[in-house]
Amino acid sequence: MRETAESYIRPLVRRLRAYVPGEQPKVTGLVKLNTNENPYPPSPKVLRAVRSAVDSRLRLYPNPTAERLREKLAALHHCRPANIIVGNGSDELLALATRAFVEPESACPPNPCSRAVVQFFAPSYTLYPVLAEIAGARANPVPLAADFGLPTIAQLTAGCWDFKAALTFITTPNAPTGRGYATAELETLCRKQRGVVVLDEAYVDFARENAMALALRHPHVLVARTFSKAYSLCFQRIGYLVGHETLIAALHKIRDSYNVNGLGQIAALATLADLPYYRRGFKRIIATRQRLSSELSKMGFAVLPSQTNFIFARPPKFPAEVWLQKLRARKVLVRWFSSPETRDYLRITIGTDTEADALLRAASAVLVGQQS
Amino acid sequence: MRETAESYIRPLVRRLRAYVPGEQPKVTGLVKLNTNENPYPPSPKVLRAVRSAVDSRLRLYPNPTAERLREKLAALHHCRPANIIVGNGSDELLALATRAFVEPESACPPNPCSRAVVQFFAPSYTLYPVLAEIAGARANPVPLAADFGLPTIAQLTAGCWDFKAALTFITTPNAPTGRGYATAELETLCRKQRGVVVLDEAYVDFARENAMALALRHPHVLVARTFSKAYSLCFQRIGYLVGHETLIAALHKIRDSYNVNGLGQIAALATLADLPYYRRGFKRIIATRQRLSSELSKMGFAVLPSQTNFIFARPPKFPAEVWLQKLRARKVLVRWFSSPETRDYLRITIGTDTEADALLRAASAVLVGQQS
Repeated sequence: MRETAESYIRPLVRRLRAYVPGEQPKVTGLVKLNTNENPYPPSPKVLRAVRSAVDSRLRLYPNPTAERLREKLAALHHCRPANIIVGNGSDELLALATRAFVEPESACPPNPCSRAVVQFFAPSYTLYPVLAEIAGARANPVPLAADFGLPTIAQLTAGCWDFKAALTFITTPNAPTGRGYATAELETLCRKQRGVVVLDEAYVDFARENAMALALRHPHVLVARTFSKAYSLCFQRIGYLVGHETLIAALHKIRDSYNVNGLGQIAALATLADLPYYRRGFKRIIATRQRLSSELSKMGFAVLPSQTNFIFARPPKFPAEVWLQKLRARKVLVRWFSSPETRDYLRITIGTDTEADALLRAASAVLVGQQS
Repeated sequence: MRETAESYIRPLVRRLRAYVPGEQPKVTGLVKLNTNENPYPPSPKVLRAVRSAVDSRLRLYPNPTAERLREKLAALHHCRPANIIVGNGSDELLALATRAFVEPESACPPNPCSRAVVQFFAPSYTLYPVLAEIAGARANPVPLAADFGLPTIAQLTAGCWDFKAALTFITTPNAPTGRGYATAELETLCRKQRGVVVLDEAYVDFARENAMALALRHPHVLVARTFSKAYSLCFQRIGYLVGHETLIAALHKIRDSYNVNGLGQIAALATLADLPYYRRGFKRIIATRQRLSSELSKMGFAVLPSQTNFIFARPPKFPAEVWLQKLRARKVLVRWFSSPETRDYLRITIGTDTEADALLRAASAVLVGQQS
């Protein structure tokens, strides 16, 4: 008798649930405030650079190490190209970090073993536990403080935090809470940590501080950045990690040979040549964030302070999940996460002022109970 | 005392040697016949489609499952979109297959265990042993017949072939030999095989037969295809796997959420809408292949019959490695592999007729001992 198709799959993979990304709707006319994309397009110079590269070169392999891009990023961050790896979005790099630094539990002694632990705060990016599962490692989610701030070292020591965890992911500023962490606090934590720490700075361009210095100061700290959110390049999948060249070299060894598409490399290079354009956009988004937070607060939303391009807000009158549906019925998409710490909140991406107005109108209508 | 950076890396990863891709030279003016790229550019319609998509959409995430592309590919191959996964080049999919179907040896009993075996013929794609190593699995390279054909089942049974190997990769037609395998022979082998078989058809558009039917007939057979070689899209990283929906679903669960960049999806869709353009190119490449094979044979090269866009040829007078250097000195790049079965040969990509002429001139000059 033949095996069933199921039997060919590793038991670990059979048991997995897939990560669920935010919806990319196919109908048009929706106000899309659910996946933290930048509402402003890439710079006209970036669009021109990419368009003019669409020629016979598409038949050739792209540079396998994104060499020129790493050179420019190294100049930007005052380090060397050997301190940088570029990925097919930063998601690829987070997955590579798991595979480079974390053992599967099957390779460890029967007792809990820190070499097989992927650690992160809850709530934060919901991809981390998925990466742990895929690697056959143990996820160690540790609750944030009640105000979603970082717990103190004393609190961590008293709790279930593992100072020897093979890999710790910290989203900073955090998602979905929008909360920023002080670099000094992060450094205190990193100094105590005996495994690799990835500071995932996907939203850092909307924040007051960044922690890049820690990646260049500590051999076990890596900082992840992306061109997706702040630099309007989701479509082309460009992220990077900065850190000690030994750790970076390990990641290079296990990535796919040509992991970064060529037009993405060109778009990212042109982006770095026009940073003032993007910085103007960050200011606009931060201004819209302030106005939106203030207007929603007046309506009775409890809006947490945000250092990102989204806000995390506890809506009045109805449960957050009901708001999700009611806003969707009014053609406004936001995001809701079902876990206990987040189920009372909506995560709302900061769009353009027009999109913010559409959200505010929809929210008013929900509150006064208008039929959509 | 702090740990060294090295100590944060898994011992398995520390021991790895990285896969070495073919050189992508930075100097211009070289005749580049070393990485099996298509010498002809993408269709003008593809270039137009990509150019006109370079707009504000770059700020949005691409479709996470390459949905429209899978629909068109399903129509092409007479299957359903659920039978298809698109990857960031087919390399990503080969790596995913290793992670979905092969256990690390550490998870298996101490004796040789087929669940931890990645099997392939030697010579074939040099990425396969690298994937095995990265997965902590055991590579099982099995020699091809002396003429580089497939061994018979009797020969395999008598040899070190593992009919229960978790994963078997077969490049068909093969690289670097250029040899095509009959679908009937492949099916006989697949029927005996108790683990997953990936038929890697990167070069199939230059061959007489393809084995796609086997992926749709057998639950454990997957066929890998790519837009890189025949469809002139190396730069944009698009490959796909076809097979049983249960195996395909397992691969979807462990891939990165947005693994396929948006402009690549658009380029591939436009390619499928203009296949006659590419088929004309295949005919030209096959004609050049015949002419080049015949001319090189006259010069004393032993040229193996090829069903790909490259030839594998044993050069006269000097060792192949010396030829590599002598041709490079004359600005012609070809590829040479150092393993015992391949070290007597050069792998030469079929370029345009002009490039073929340049190679022939350079080879003549080498033979008559001209200084470059």
